[in-house]
Amino acid sequence: MQTQFDIRTNGPGLYEFTGEVGHWVKGSGLLTLFIQHTSASLVIQENADPEVQTDLQNFFARLVPPSNDPRMAYLTHTYEGPDDMPAHIKAALLPTHLSIPVINGKMALGTWQGIYVFEHRDRPHHRRVVAHLQPQS
Amino acid sequence: MQTQFDIRTNGPGLYEFTGEVGHWVKGSGLLTLFIQHTSASLVIQENADPEVQTDLQNFFARLVPPSNDPRMAYLTHTYEGPDDMPAHIKAALLPTHLSIPVINGKMALGTWQGIYVFEHRDRPHHRRVVAHLQPQS
Amino acid sequence: MQTQFDIRTNGPGLYEFTGEVGHWVKGSGLLTLFIQHTSASLVIQENADPEVQTDLQNFFARLVPPSNDPRMAYLTHTYEGPDDMPAHIKAALLPTHLSIPVINGKMALGTWQGIYVFEHRDRPHHRRVVAHLQPQS
Repeated sequence: MQTQFDIRTNGPGLYEFTGEVGHWVKGSGLLTLFIQHTSASLVIQENADPEVQTDLQNFFARLVPPSNDPRMAYLTHTYEGPDDMPAHIKAALLPTHLSIPVINGKMALGTWQGIYVFEHRDRPHHRRVVAHLQPQS
Repeated sequence: MQTQFDIRTNGPGLYEFTGEVGHWVKGSGLLTLFIQHTSASLVIQENADPEVQTDLQNFFARLVPPSNDPRMAYLTHTYEGPDDMPAHIKAALLPTHLSIPVINGKMALGTWQGIYVFEHRDRPHHRRVVAHLQPQS
Repeated sequence: MQTQFDIRTNGPGLYEFTGEVGHWVKGSGLLTLFIQHTSASLVIQENADPEVQTDLQNFFARLVPPSNDPRMAYLTHTYEGPDDMPAHIKAALLPTHLSIPVINGKMALGTWQGIYVFEHRDRPHHRRVVAHLQPQS
């Protein structure tokens, strides 16, 4: 069973789509989500306090500054904008896919776990996430 | 086939549970381990020399200092203690789930690969890992 | 359906093997690739501009300097060479496994996504990647 989710993003940050995925899964098995981009990521993070998401974004913005920052002068792939190569680096540091067991129609998430697209680019994007549910055999 | 493993942790560091998982798997298929927390991680690392685990922990402690460190003054999610937001950041940098092929009753791990819970919080915790084994069809 | 890919590496950097994997997969289901090493990684990254790969390697080389660099004086696992413990750290920061949905005989990769072994050691190595394809049931 396969589908895809299209998530609109509007600049760097985390965009939750736990609810959409939860409505789609059924039965028991293994869910895999895969993002078809190299400048955005999938993460599971705390969904209780939005400050966690802001702090996460700020940490990664400091760990990987824009390519026009003097500390990043060694970067060579700069012609797609100062946010592009840092986006690829963040996409290497963060997951491209998530696998989550499904039990009796529900994802086996912990109490505070939500599923997010982590957008690394500045401009608005449509992000495509392919979902695969392997029923338990 | 699904189960869960409960791992007790006692402060930051790596806690191996390769043996418990190895006893549970059988046949051939795909094993997925999923940790139900956003302040602890799952990692596969060298199990030969315990210095590797100490060095790993120290690297991440320096990469993401406690939130009462002046370098982390930009963090806003600080009311759960100075080790909390750094734990969420480390949980984004390290895996929430692992998938390992199983062949004839054994996980396809390399010679030196062990499976660990990487605890990021200071206080003792019980960490829950959901396991899903999808038999080869 | 399981197989393994052997990738020869010749120093730090990204080694693409998207084509080999693409030739092997068939039908629809879930592909999982698992690297049996703790000093090399698997990554999905942009395959259009080789500068991206060079920049990625340079970022990680700066984030995790060799253990004989004064900034890494806290490392204790140093007897396997100055590139060894940094390789383990990079292996924790980057994926050990990738899961990719397969649809009608093709991996559901985005337009610019390629599959790479990311070698972290200086000397030439043979790297073994176990592949598991779970057919859709």
